[in-house]
Amino acid sequence: MIQTPYLLFLGDAPDPLAAKVAQGIRDWRPEFAVGQFRMEGCKADMKLPDMSLAEAKAAGAKTLVIGVANRGGVISPAWKKVLIEALEEGFDLASGLHNLLRDEEDLAAVAKACGRTLHDVRVPSVKYPIANGEKRRGKRCLAVGTDCSVGKMYTALAMDREMRDRGLKSTFRATGQTGILITGDGVPLDAVIADFMAGSIEWLTPDNDEDHWDLIEGQGSLFHVSYSGVTMALVHGGQPDALVLCHEPTRAHMRGLPGYNLPSLPALRDLALELARVANPACEVIGISVNTQHLDDEEAVAYLARVEEEMGLPAVDPFRQGAGRLVDALVGKRSDLAA
Amino acid sequence: MIQTPYLLFLGDAPDPLAAKVAQGIRDWRPEFAVGQFRMEGCKADMKLPDMSLAEAKAAGAKTLVIGVANRGGVISPAWKKVLIEALEEGFDLASGLHNLLRDEEDLAAVAKACGRTLHDVRVPSVKYPIANGEKRRGKRCLAVGTDCSVGKMYTALAMDREMRDRGLKSTFRATGQTGILITGDGVPLDAVIADFMAGSIEWLTPDNDEDHWDLIEGQGSLFHVSYSGVTMALVHGGQPDALVLCHEPTRAHMRGLPGYNLPSLPALRDLALELARVANPACEVIGISVNTQHLDDEEAVAYLARVEEEMGLPAVDPFRQGAGRLVDALVGKRSDLAA
Repeated sequence: MIQTPYLLFLGDAPDPLAAKVAQGIRDWRPEFAVGQFRMEGCKADMKLPDMSLAEAKAAGAKTLVIGVANRGGVISPAWKKVLIEALEEGFDLASGLHNLLRDEEDLAAVAKACGRTLHDVRVPSVKYPIANGEKRRGKRCLAVGTDCSVGKMYTALAMDREMRDRGLKSTFRATGQTGILITGDGVPLDAVIADFMAGSIEWLTPDNDEDHWDLIEGQGSLFHVSYSGVTMALVHGGQPDALVLCHEPTRAHMRGLPGYNLPSLPALRDLALELARVANPACEVIGISVNTQHLDDEEAVAYLARVEEEMGLPAVDPFRQGAGRLVDALVGKRSDLAA
Repeated sequence: MIQTPYLLFLGDAPDPLAAKVAQGIRDWRPEFAVGQFRMEGCKADMKLPDMSLAEAKAAGAKTLVIGVANRGGVISPAWKKVLIEALEEGFDLASGLHNLLRDEEDLAAVAKACGRTLHDVRVPSVKYPIANGEKRRGKRCLAVGTDCSVGKMYTALAMDREMRDRGLKSTFRATGQTGILITGDGVPLDAVIADFMAGSIEWLTPDNDEDHWDLIEGQGSLFHVSYSGVTMALVHGGQPDALVLCHEPTRAHMRGLPGYNLPSLPALRDLALELARVANPACEVIGISVNTQHLDDEEAVAYLARVEEEMGLPAVDPFRQGAGRLVDALVGKRSDLAA
């Protein structure tokens, strides 16, 4: 297990979205985050105390978590000096990047010399099966997005928190590094071998009580050409009974893909539902989760009302408003199924 | 490079489809296949001479190719005795299975002691990029199927052969172990890490002459819940200008998935085209390739005529009839685009 609390390393994050790992920990396990470490040019800010390594150590931090991601998951040479100093100061390191801490010879050598641990949460630690498509007991809800980084993990975490607060049976199922760093387990789906992707999601969401819901973290987007295959494996491996559509209304184009427009919410609804019903003909879209962080209050309320009317489904921003209405819709669906 | 010619190892294949690796080599590089080695209970037959290891050696075979696949890609314990004897007799071994020859301690030890080579063509040897979605020069055609193992590789190989015979610019692009064993290179897509799947296909089908066609081998099916994510990566990474729909009309259910019906050809057309147009709005379906091996001549002709009328597209069995009409349709499309 990774030792807590953490110092969140934001490095030279080129924009706030690049630090979504740190943001997730800060929002869902704030008790784990004693401070942040930022380098020159860092464009992200968790609104935590900026700390030197020595200050964080004095504040009790045990692990430096790399809370920032580069395209392709590279460990930047610019970070190396800090990471080595952290090991020498007595921190463990934890990372969800594709490029592994353990594969960096200098880090591995210093960690060994200092008796520290390198946690690469992106590396699958399980031999996943090939998906068999068999129907599993219990219910599953999957968040699907019009784009990457639109709030799919937040939505699932917020719904899980709301369901637990109501005494309902619910488990957040992490499929990415942030979720795994937050909850301590899950499937690092984008690091899984292609043939075993859907099987890894079947493994992650096994038979359960009939009234138990898995809230499955989504990845990528069916419309994002870089990662759509990963999303497809979630839709078919997860056998969702319910889908929540996730959207961020201010994007000019698909993340990292200039020239690719975002799909409309109806287009996402129709495609995701058609694909999901291959694995589970009873699947329904139960609501829409909008990330309104770039809209002011008035704009957000107006936008949500318009989407709700156009789509005929509850549309909420779970970060601003909580996930209550999404859970209402999910519980309503569950009652329908049981009736 | 793998030394030729081969002895094709069929092991204890539970059905003919399990030996599709051997069948592909036998059909497309018959000059590489001097004989077959079958164990008790083998249900596959390449119509090649059955040979002992000594007979194959005397006939000039240099490499024993594992031409059969188990579910999950396991190296069966029942095969081990033969494989070890083959190494001792002086054969190299070549395999496209998920489980690697090199990871079997006994095989690795004997190979080393005998100075033989273990070729695992399933292991990616390239560090693939993340897909960037940028438009590439040249044309690409992708085979997509209603199910796995319906003739997608055959279709692409047959079209490639026909185009070369006509003096057109064409390259078959292998995406699976059989194709790689046949052509000597390609991307072992189902062994690629999830995040890099689409990027590996962009890498495989780079910028080319405007009048050059890549004929991309398909994998899985958008409707096969075990492998649909792999197929999705081909559709988005390949940026196809043209799709060929592949079908086998006698399946009772999706391969390996009792209870899952095959989609109709119109359903495949509509879904594949909608997805492909995310990456390439000009994509068109140019024809239908039907694997009629389980129909007699009369049934096959009648079936193809019916499909052709219903779909308004050329429908052929390239194994029985050649790929001429599919290439006609592709060349027609190319002329349209150039006009």
